[in-house]
Formats: sequence, C-alpha cells, structure tokens
Amino acid sequence: MKWARFAHDGRTACGIVEGDRVAEVSGGLFDPPSPTGRSFAIDRIRLLPPVIPPTFYAAGTNYRQHLQNAESRGEKVEWPTHAEVNYRAGNALIGDGDAIVIPADSSGRVAFEGELVVVIGKRAKRLSRDNAFDCVFGYTIGNDVSERSWQKSDRTFWRSKNCDTFKPMGPWVETDVDLASMETRIRLNGREVSRFRTGDMLFGIADYLCEMSRYLTLVPGDVLWMGTEDPSLDMVLGDTVEVSITGIGTLTNPVIAGV
Amino acid sequence: MKWARFAHDGRTACGIVEGDRVAEVSGGLFDPPSPTGRSFAIDRIRLLPPVIPPTFYAAGTNYRQHLQNAESRGEKVEWPTHAEVNYRAGNALIGDGDAIVIPADSSGRVAFEGELVVVIGKRAKRLSRDNAFDCVFGYTIGNDVSERSWQKSDRTFWRSKNCDTFKPMGPWVETDVDLASMETRIRLNGREVSRFRTGDMLFGIADYLCEMSRYLTLVPGDVLWMGTEDPSLDMVLGDTVEVSITGIGTLTNPVIAGV
Repeated sequence: MKWARFAHDGRTACGIVEGDRVAEVSGGLFDPPSPTGRSFAIDRIRLLPPVIPPTFYAAGTNYRQHLQNAESRGEKVEWPTHAEVNYRAGNALIGDGDAIVIPADSSGRVAFEGELVVVIGKRAKRLSRDNAFDCVFGYTIGNDVSERSWQKSDRTFWRSKNCDTFKPMGPWVETDVDLASMETRIRLNGREVSRFRTGDMLFGIADYLCEMSRYLTLVPGDVLWMGTEDPSLDMVLGDTVEVSITGIGTLTNPVIAGV
Repeated sequence: MKWARFAHDGRTACGIVEGDRVAEVSGGLFDPPSPTGRSFAIDRIRLLPPVIPPTFYAAGTNYRQHLQNAESRGEKVEWPTHAEVNYRAGNALIGDGDAIVIPADSSGRVAFEGELVVVIGKRAKRLSRDNAFDCVFGYTIGNDVSERSWQKSDRTFWRSKNCDTFKPMGPWVETDVDLASMETRIRLNGREVSRFRTGDMLFGIADYLCEMSRYLTLVPGDVLWMGTEDPSLDMVLGDTVEVSITGIGTLTNPVIAGV
C-alpha cells in the first residue's frame, strides 16, 4: 500500500495511492485508513514529504564503492566498524516535484545521493534481530543533496546537507516491498547515471535499528536514511534528478538557483 | 511571562506560571494565551519539555574556558572561527524533575553542561543583526548531558549526547529576560560547582541566528542551545543536578541507573 501526504486547495491530507489517483483518508499515516470518498488525480495535487520526522536519522557512509572511490581520490577514509548514526534536519525536507534550491554562495559542487528511507511506525526500544522490522511502517526514497565544498568545512554537515530544500523525500511511503530485489537507479535529465543494489549495505536496516534502539526510543514518523553508493555526481542549475527504487516509485526534483 | 507545558490526569496542556501555580490556557505555546480557568499547584503536575522542536539546534563549543581547559588536558582543540551549528535529537528530551538515566554499558563518565536555550517563535529566514531577535519567543534552560568516553568515539555524538533522557530542558519558557545580566549556576547535590556569565559566548545569539538563517528557515518551536562554560563535571548515580539561569528559573534532574 502506498501512503501519500499532499496539499490541495490549502488543505493538507493523507491518502492511498491507486494508479494515478490518490484516495483521501481521514487521519494520519499511522491511523487505520478511513476513506473520505474524495479522490484526486496525482498531477493535480502537491505531494508533500510523506512524514515530518520527530527525529531525522541517517546512516553514516554505508556502501563499499562510495568509500573505495573516496580513497582513490586520496581522501582520508575511515571504514566504519559499526552502524554509526548521523542526523539530518527537518527544515531541509521537500516533497516530490519541489525544487532543490542552490544558495547563491555555493561553490556549485552539489551532488545527489539516492537513498532508501526506512519509516518507523511503532514506538520501539531494545530491538533484537528477530523483531527489528516489527517497528517499520514502510519505505520511501530520499535524495541526500550535498554541497561538496561545504561538506569539507562543516563538521556537522549543517550547511552542506541541510540547507532548505536539500532533503527531497517521497513520493510516498510503500508498506509492501521486497528488500532483497531492490535496485536504486538515478537519472539526471532522463539519462541513467547510477545504478546499484539497494541492499548491498555495509550495515543493514536491522543492524541500525538494533544498535540505535539500545540507546534511544524510536517513535512513529522517525525516518532512517540508509546511505548511498557511488557515483554520486554533481548537478547543475536546470538539471532534473530522479531517484527510483524498485517497488516504491520515483522521486523527481528540479535544481534551481537561489538568491 | 513564563510558559509551561505539563501533564496532568493523562492530559497535556500549556499554562502560565504564576508563583507556585500554573494557570492553564487553551491552545499551544505560540497562540495568544486564553485562560481555561483551571489552575494547578506546580508540585501536583508533571512539567514536560516546554517545546518539542521541529529541528533541535545546538551551538558548537562556544565558551572560552571550555576550550582552554580541553587544551590544558592535551586534547586537540579547534577554536571556532564562526558560528558552527550542531544538532541534538528529540528522543533525548525530558522535563524538569525527570530522571537522567545512565545506560548500563556507559563508562560512568557522564557530565552535565548547563546551557541557555533560545526558543524560536516565528518563521524566519535571512535575519540581520537588526532584526535577529524578532523571531525569538523566549528562553529556557538545557542540560546537555554528555557521556565523555562515547563522545570520543561517536563522530556525531549520537550516543554520547542523545541517549534517551540526556537532554533535560525546562522548567518553562521565560519571554522576558535581561540577557546582559544573566548568570548560569550549576549545583550538584545542593553544592554550587560551576558559575559563569551566560552572555560570555564566543558567538552570540544574533551571530548564530544570522548565520543559520542564511541557509535555513527557522520555525516556531525550534530551539538553539547556546553551549556551556567549564567546569562541566561528572555526575554519579544518585546525584541531583540543578541548572539555574538568572530570570528564568532552575532545571532539576536526578541521575539514576539504566538497565
């Protein structure tokens, strides 16, 4: 089932995606779906980030080639020895179709990073490998837009990864996926520029959820972005970037200039 | 005016603190206060963190002695050249009176850090030094509890500073303060162990708000923790830590063992 959050006529609502339409439901993403009877063509509504996370978690570097390529560029790389948790910031979230706005003082080196996003649906602490997935509501797609020159100077990546609009997420949350067969594909202006097996992570979803929940309580709406594989290429103004993951859909965002 | 958020009889509400009582209001912290007529003795309600921040910002190291002491311990210290933004995590928030729970696998080296907290009340972007304070709703107190051994190994401080219960905040938000005359005082089991001028920051509130809002939109409820001065001493199980700031109040939390 695909859950969307959308704006229409000045209202925000949730709905179930069925083909090219969204059937509105009353209540939120984690309530039992109760149709209102209203239905909208997807191209007539504005899709919003499907959740606003109470805490916005992200995996550290979590794919092999991403690290190997950094090493081959002569960068100092620390191979992770365990699931290391990062944060991203809610201010940066935008939905499918919204524009990624590059600040005027950026160096212009702004890269996409296509990522699987885990959406938490149940309060959870001290998960085990046997029950880690019980707290997962579904999956969506994230583009962890990164300003590469700021990334070198910002210890916490606060500008490099968290400028307004730098965290496209969507288009919706899919509750039924086959994690084993997923591929992530990234297209820039319609041309495929990256493709990798989504599941080839150094530390998997259960690794992260078990490690995190030893120390923290996961709550409904929390998201965990799982990292990306290389190549994560630079985008230029006017580009359109699409991140597709098997069984979920495609997250599409244009890149425009800020002031 | 002192705004509190509290739980009573299974309900959550906001109220105005008047002496040792809270006068309940309908609506939230950023709505015009509309009294319900109900009033509660503070010691009969449970104070909650006064806001749940959409994004939880924290200043980097922001006081001189804190850095000088780290240098004198032989630690490699980078003196900040500009306001550098960090994040903390909502899962870790607790209110006044709640217990700081030390995980069983902690080294035991758990320090307090008493901090002034800026609470944002208005949506804001591209603030200038002239109008930076227009977006500030008020001020509260934070204790940036830090597990020192994990702080060395966690690049993002995810465990060291963001275990559940490691971010006491409260007791309420004070809208009228005199920033210039503030002192921060910390008592451990009733004995004063640290005292410093709250305003002696390397980068002030306006520095941070201007720098941040060049790149991100501040929204009502966002908080910015302003950092702490040394000494930030270790606490042991059974301790009670109190952080007081002139004109705001006192944030009191006991320290207990986790499982």
